[in-house]
Amino acid sequence: MTTTDLTATAALLDWAASCRLDDADAAQVRYLLLDHTANALGGLDAESTRTVRRFVADRPGASPAPGGLRAPEEYAAFVAGVSAHALESDDTHQPSSSHPGSAVFPAALALAESTDAGFDSFAEAVVAGYEVIARIGEAATAAGQYARGFHPTGTIGVFGAAVAAGRLLGLDAEQLHSALGVALSQSAGSMAFLDGGAWTKRLHPGWAAHSGIVAARLAALGYIGPLDPITGRSGFLQAYTDTPELGELTAGLGTSRLAIHTTSIKAYACCRYNQAPIDAILTLVREHDLAPDAIARVRVGVLEAGWSIVAEPEAEKRRPTSIVDAQFSMPYAAAVAVLHRAAGTRQFRPDAIASPEAAAFMDRVDCYRSERLEAIFPQHWPAEVEIELVDGRVLRHYVEGAKGDPERPLSTPELEAKFADLTDRTLAAEGRTRVVDAIRTLGNNTSPRVFARLLGSAEILAPGVVGLR
Amino acid sequence: MTTTDLTATAALLDWAASCRLDDADAAQVRYLLLDHTANALGGLDAESTRTVRRFVADRPGASPAPGGLRAPEEYAAFVAGVSAHALESDDTHQPSSSHPGSAVFPAALALAESTDAGFDSFAEAVVAGYEVIARIGEAATAAGQYARGFHPTGTIGVFGAAVAAGRLLGLDAEQLHSALGVALSQSAGSMAFLDGGAWTKRLHPGWAAHSGIVAARLAALGYIGPLDPITGRSGFLQAYTDTPELGELTAGLGTSRLAIHTTSIKAYACCRYNQAPIDAILTLVREHDLAPDAIARVRVGVLEAGWSIVAEPEAEKRRPTSIVDAQFSMPYAAAVAVLHRAAGTRQFRPDAIASPEAAAFMDRVDCYRSERLEAIFPQHWPAEVEIELVDGRVLRHYVEGAKGDPERPLSTPELEAKFADLTDRTLAAEGRTRVVDAIRTLGNNTSPRVFARLLGSAEILAPGVVGLR
Repeated sequence: MTTTDLTATAALLDWAASCRLDDADAAQVRYLLLDHTANALGGLDAESTRTVRRFVADRPGASPAPGGLRAPEEYAAFVAGVSAHALESDDTHQPSSSHPGSAVFPAALALAESTDAGFDSFAEAVVAGYEVIARIGEAATAAGQYARGFHPTGTIGVFGAAVAAGRLLGLDAEQLHSALGVALSQSAGSMAFLDGGAWTKRLHPGWAAHSGIVAARLAALGYIGPLDPITGRSGFLQAYTDTPELGELTAGLGTSRLAIHTTSIKAYACCRYNQAPIDAILTLVREHDLAPDAIARVRVGVLEAGWSIVAEPEAEKRRPTSIVDAQFSMPYAAAVAVLHRAAGTRQFRPDAIASPEAAAFMDRVDCYRSERLEAIFPQHWPAEVEIELVDGRVLRHYVEGAKGDPERPLSTPELEAKFADLTDRTLAAEGRTRVVDAIRTLGNNTSPRVFARLLGSAEILAPGVVGLR
Repeated sequence: MTTTDLTATAALLDWAASCRLDDADAAQVRYLLLDHTANALGGLDAESTRTVRRFVADRPGASPAPGGLRAPEEYAAFVAGVSAHALESDDTHQPSSSHPGSAVFPAALALAESTDAGFDSFAEAVVAGYEVIARIGEAATAAGQYARGFHPTGTIGVFGAAVAAGRLLGLDAEQLHSALGVALSQSAGSMAFLDGGAWTKRLHPGWAAHSGIVAARLAALGYIGPLDPITGRSGFLQAYTDTPELGELTAGLGTSRLAIHTTSIKAYACCRYNQAPIDAILTLVREHDLAPDAIARVRVGVLEAGWSIVAEPEAEKRRPTSIVDAQFSMPYAAAVAVLHRAAGTRQFRPDAIASPEAAAFMDRVDCYRSERLEAIFPQHWPAEVEIELVDGRVLRHYVEGAKGDPERPLSTPELEAKFADLTDRTLAAEGRTRVVDAIRTLGNNTSPRVFARLLGSAEILAPGVVGLR
């Protein structure tokens, strides 16, 4: 540890304790919140979320939790976080390979009940939380964490949740420092979920939100954290990565684009590595109005980082048998893009996955590696596809990044359509309208507390989602 | 990951799901429980514990927590665990360099309310929890975890707490596997507490107990964990150590001495590295009835592993200014052993630390390194001391291990004296008697639930400890 390193953490926390919003920031928070809310309410009926809701139902408290519960605030956040990650469709900060929204929004919304914060305070807490996740994550490097076996959304999510919660509790920079230090003693999240169909990936943002609130609450009560939780001799960068990039903690702090503006929203209901390829396929299919029968082969360039996740083993990826398998299959994603000209949650349900048409089409999909794609990764996550037609023509398309990336945000109608798609099983139609309207009026007619109560009310739910069984 | 490795984890969990007690095991559980209880009740008025109690006081539930609270069971365990580690006097499993009692007993006691388990079930859960901590810790190696920056009591404690809680909830081996996998996503604990006077070390066993209960509860409800949380490609050994020793997971499982029988109890109220040296000094001082004035120098052999913790920087170690500083000072420990012929909590309070006699004597204490000590470490934590008298004589003494090590357990009167020393500020005299008597009758007249309620009652407390401020 050098004085300079500790200064970096202090500078980040000074900034986080005092950052303010402009109109563009506020609009971006609303955009990300609408997407988070779609995910948190859409994931309510996943079996993993139901299990957590049953656990939390025994822990009464004052904070409204999605699904019609009231719980201690950290457990309200726990439910929201695990639910928001269940559909594999929540936002992504690509440089840190993390899902900040599912850790930060649940923490901030859970504190709305006790703090009754205004929209500006709420949004500033969210901005600070995203920024801390992004910067600690980039300093640790995603590749460095993956190589050791850690899942960044859990490990760095807790820091963002702690800072967002701490900000709403009115902690100063020194108290935020203690909150960050307590969060270090809670920082966890393992890539072991890749084996055995585990649900623990979905647990990570919820547990991060939960633990971050505990860290902030303890710090607010005076609990003392360590001097240097990030860059110290036993700090986060020492323990969770072998390839730290210290400079990322503060590079351009206060002047470069905020992490909220460099976070992507998924346009399609599946793995991040499938997003740009789906985008490229949809472009060609729509532009040339291609019927499935007109297509002989689809060849998809896949990023090396995602190869083992979505492209192999080839035989298994061509015959997914569960929702999770389908979400992580490039051949399946290509098939539904061609067959349905869509890749929403409907295309990732058991009936669609089991269809003979999908199975037949997947045999016509090949994945390949491409140098061109690697050149601009991970700042961009590009794709290239080649569609060979039955008549012998070959159509090609390249995209630098997927729809939903910072450079190509979803329009309000597109995001509201995603909202409807994600929540069509869990929300009553009237409830969906109320939630979307509430985000439009958030900060004017609707306070964060009123909004959180709406998200946590049973009234907005579809009938089958209300009960906990 | 190989099949063999996964088999090792499965074998450990099969054993943990079904282990049974003999009379010697039951007696050892009582011995460790009496010591745990002394620590958990003795640490109640530490400022760190009070902070956690204030946090938990807002979370009402059914499980009694030390200090006169009722909380959700994981928060009852949280209070007990942070309190038990506050006095730096809880038990130690030396080969894994961890404090299993402060993670396992809080988890098991917190579940007494809802499960109303009998003593045998309770004790079997404790035995399984200690064993899992010991074996995963030895497989990861303490040195390997320290080198990366992890604090074993937190990282491996959560596995033992999950297994102890899971056992009381009646989980089978497969469900315990999921509990262990969820616990992996919660496994944390950083050595960063060494810088800045942090309280996070004390947090670790409590947070482990808390998280382990959540993991077991989620597994009981059907939450699915990963296939191979310990030896898998992203498992615990990959992420938390660079020097795994896979064989330790199962070596001699079911035949070698159980971890409960190889766990040490501290006889003196300070750092583990000071225990054997204090023991050696007390032996010489008592045997030769040495007055402080008769002593010219005390030279203490200190283990290399503890050198930077208790021996340097020399000037600071000779002038501790806080309780924590004194607990981690070899010169101070030597001084009080000579001046008071004791090293209990009274000798580690501000008045004793500030005394001119202690300051003067510390200048006569020198630490040195010794090859002989290293030869049998870490299986034993030996010490040698040399006392040079004013009359020119030199007395020497060597101990293979400290009083309280498995080979030299505390007698019942000695342990009850430690209990009285640790709790003399926090318990009413009558309350102390009731607790010690309850452990004597535990399993006969007293069920674990009744015992946990007694530990959590306000009646046993000294007046100043009842309130949360």
